[in-house]
Amino acid sequence: MQINFNRLKKDIDELGRIGRDPKGGITRPSFSKADLEARAWLKEKIQEAGLSCRVDGAGNIFGRLGEGQGKTIMVGSHIDTVINGGMFDGSVGVLSGLECLRRIQEEGYRLRKPLELASFTDEEGNLVGDFLGSRAFVGELDKELLEKGLTAFGRPLKEILAGTEFTIEGILEAHKSRPEIEAYLELHIEQGPVLETEDVPIGIVDLITGKHYRWCSYIGNASHSGTTPLELRQDAFLGLADFALKSTQYVATKHYGSMVTIGKVNVMPGAFSVVPGQADFSFEFRSGSKETMSVLESELFSLAEDIASTRGLAFVSRIIDKTEPVKIPPRLINLLQEECRKLGHPFMPVTSGAGHDAQILASKADAAMIFIPSPDGISHSPQETIRWEDLEKGANLLLQALLQLAS
Amino acid sequence: MQINFNRLKKDIDELGRIGRDPKGGITRPSFSKADLEARAWLKEKIQEAGLSCRVDGAGNIFGRLGEGQGKTIMVGSHIDTVINGGMFDGSVGVLSGLECLRRIQEEGYRLRKPLELASFTDEEGNLVGDFLGSRAFVGELDKELLEKGLTAFGRPLKEILAGTEFTIEGILEAHKSRPEIEAYLELHIEQGPVLETEDVPIGIVDLITGKHYRWCSYIGNASHSGTTPLELRQDAFLGLADFALKSTQYVATKHYGSMVTIGKVNVMPGAFSVVPGQADFSFEFRSGSKETMSVLESELFSLAEDIASTRGLAFVSRIIDKTEPVKIPPRLINLLQEECRKLGHPFMPVTSGAGHDAQILASKADAAMIFIPSPDGISHSPQETIRWEDLEKGANLLLQALLQLAS
Repeated sequence: MQINFNRLKKDIDELGRIGRDPKGGITRPSFSKADLEARAWLKEKIQEAGLSCRVDGAGNIFGRLGEGQGKTIMVGSHIDTVINGGMFDGSVGVLSGLECLRRIQEEGYRLRKPLELASFTDEEGNLVGDFLGSRAFVGELDKELLEKGLTAFGRPLKEILAGTEFTIEGILEAHKSRPEIEAYLELHIEQGPVLETEDVPIGIVDLITGKHYRWCSYIGNASHSGTTPLELRQDAFLGLADFALKSTQYVATKHYGSMVTIGKVNVMPGAFSVVPGQADFSFEFRSGSKETMSVLESELFSLAEDIASTRGLAFVSRIIDKTEPVKIPPRLINLLQEECRKLGHPFMPVTSGAGHDAQILASKADAAMIFIPSPDGISHSPQETIRWEDLEKGANLLLQALLQLAS
Repeated sequence: MQINFNRLKKDIDELGRIGRDPKGGITRPSFSKADLEARAWLKEKIQEAGLSCRVDGAGNIFGRLGEGQGKTIMVGSHIDTVINGGMFDGSVGVLSGLECLRRIQEEGYRLRKPLELASFTDEEGNLVGDFLGSRAFVGELDKELLEKGLTAFGRPLKEILAGTEFTIEGILEAHKSRPEIEAYLELHIEQGPVLETEDVPIGIVDLITGKHYRWCSYIGNASHSGTTPLELRQDAFLGLADFALKSTQYVATKHYGSMVTIGKVNVMPGAFSVVPGQADFSFEFRSGSKETMSVLESELFSLAEDIASTRGLAFVSRIIDKTEPVKIPPRLINLLQEECRKLGHPFMPVTSGAGHDAQILASKADAAMIFIPSPDGISHSPQETIRWEDLEKGANLLLQALLQLAS
């Protein structure tokens, strides 16, 4: 059995026309007008495929095949995008899963276990933290965050939900309708350069790294830059600059392979002639090892404090998000390798530096991921693309793996 | 002869009530509604004092005493403020000058040379660069800057002038009505901590430092912070952090007493999970020596380029403002010292790290400045203050110096 590749390609093209942004790429955050249109389109496709369609309280969309007694084999990803994102991140996973279930249904293939497609809400974290949908699905959401957290659009979640059929209460109860899941598979673009550099069409993920996000501030004293001697300043920005360089050097030299990033910076009051009195910034680090995550947390924040005290500044921070690294179970890695060998496609092990719904599902099921190359490593950008022949290989591997798991 | 201190204090209190900002301090940028009110108030005071009042095309306000043939002895400062500024920066100079001329007029004192009070427009540079008024007065303004430059309020100057009697043409022609100036004196708050630390009520400025303002950018490549290894990144923010630390260290160790500051920073795209692709920032340096300014310019920008090439980034910059350092002529320093000795007030030489209209006037006349202490060094802030007894000493010194110069 093989997927119908032209049909899959046509689906991806169709979905990729919903939410086109005049400023480039696709802007389709969950519960936006474009997302509601995409949801309606996906539900119709699921029904056309003869799958039983269900939407839970968090807006996660499911398409189920088979009424067997066993635990469910799930395949999924997401159809929301970042602002000015690409048309492949997430969508290729949902639509490849749809195509797999559609082919199995068409062939009338008898399965021992039910198969279910999942499209998870707000994987991209445009609302309140990443993975709203999959976190709701496993029942790991915090009521206070949903009620008080501000979305990336500066409005509370409640206000954004007001235009939809969803509610905070519904999101918090979504996990109650979850079937028991035995295994979860997700096909995704790599979002990095490794597979393309190695010229290998399939990556079998062995590890999804953990991440730790904080919003931090150095606080000093704003003063006149013409009259305050360098040695008397409490320059909050220089504290940040020092921390940026030292934390990067520390991770690069002591924890090769881990990541540290300062992506967003606000310097106040922010003018010529004024020594910065406060510097706010996003700070994140990632690692594939739980132990390393915990060493990084203690070492990096103690470095931040040391710099503050050396420079006469205060350092404060609050946690924004934290996910643990997830090791993919060997039985799923072996199964994917075996099926890939049978198909004759080259493959290699890869680590996922980005977070994925699979990471969240891992607390309730065995979860695994298949990556296909991201040309030039580009993602979260209008320039994001794929090579269609890679997707065809990846989707056929997904199909074979699902058949194995459900048989 | 002495100033009428209670009258001066009353004037400062009255002017300090115009432009009170609900967010703190005074917001009275030139040509704002508050500034127009302050201008009307000042013109009335000048007329009440029996001085001949004149306003030039740049909105500089003058009060003239005496019709003698000699070159004019001028005393001045400014009444505009930064946003949420204090009530003493500038105002104490204009109103002390007014008080001096008013006393001389009252006494019917015969002068050999005309005396003129000046209140210069937009010393604070809320419009298009610092010192609009004094630059117009000496004829050193660029037509293109006035026509194309954006003001701090994001609107073109022309639009701001539309609500007033002033025009760009008028500003450019203001210098044509300038009398010949022999000497210019300005009393100002120190805006720094030196006089207070040394517990000396009078500073006689020996030098006004030069400054160089640029708007700069490091340009790299935005990429996913979870999937781009540290060694493959072109992180524009790390370039800026490196430049901030190295440029500060270079100036602190090789050019002690000079200043370097990064006050405003924009990092783009500016989000968790994204390695910064571009970092824009204000960069300024200051020195009392022309030679040092030129060494700093060449060394600092070559450092900026070196960091760019080491880190695989591009560095670009454009000049925003540049003023040369000004040495105060010894004859005025000697005269101020002599009068201060006669009055019995302690004094010390000080360098002005901030820019002042006196610096601009220096190209057309001998220019000197008297500083009084700024408690805690605070200025450009609602917390800016003075000790009234220091002002009384400074204003009496100003009076004696003007009498000497005009006799």
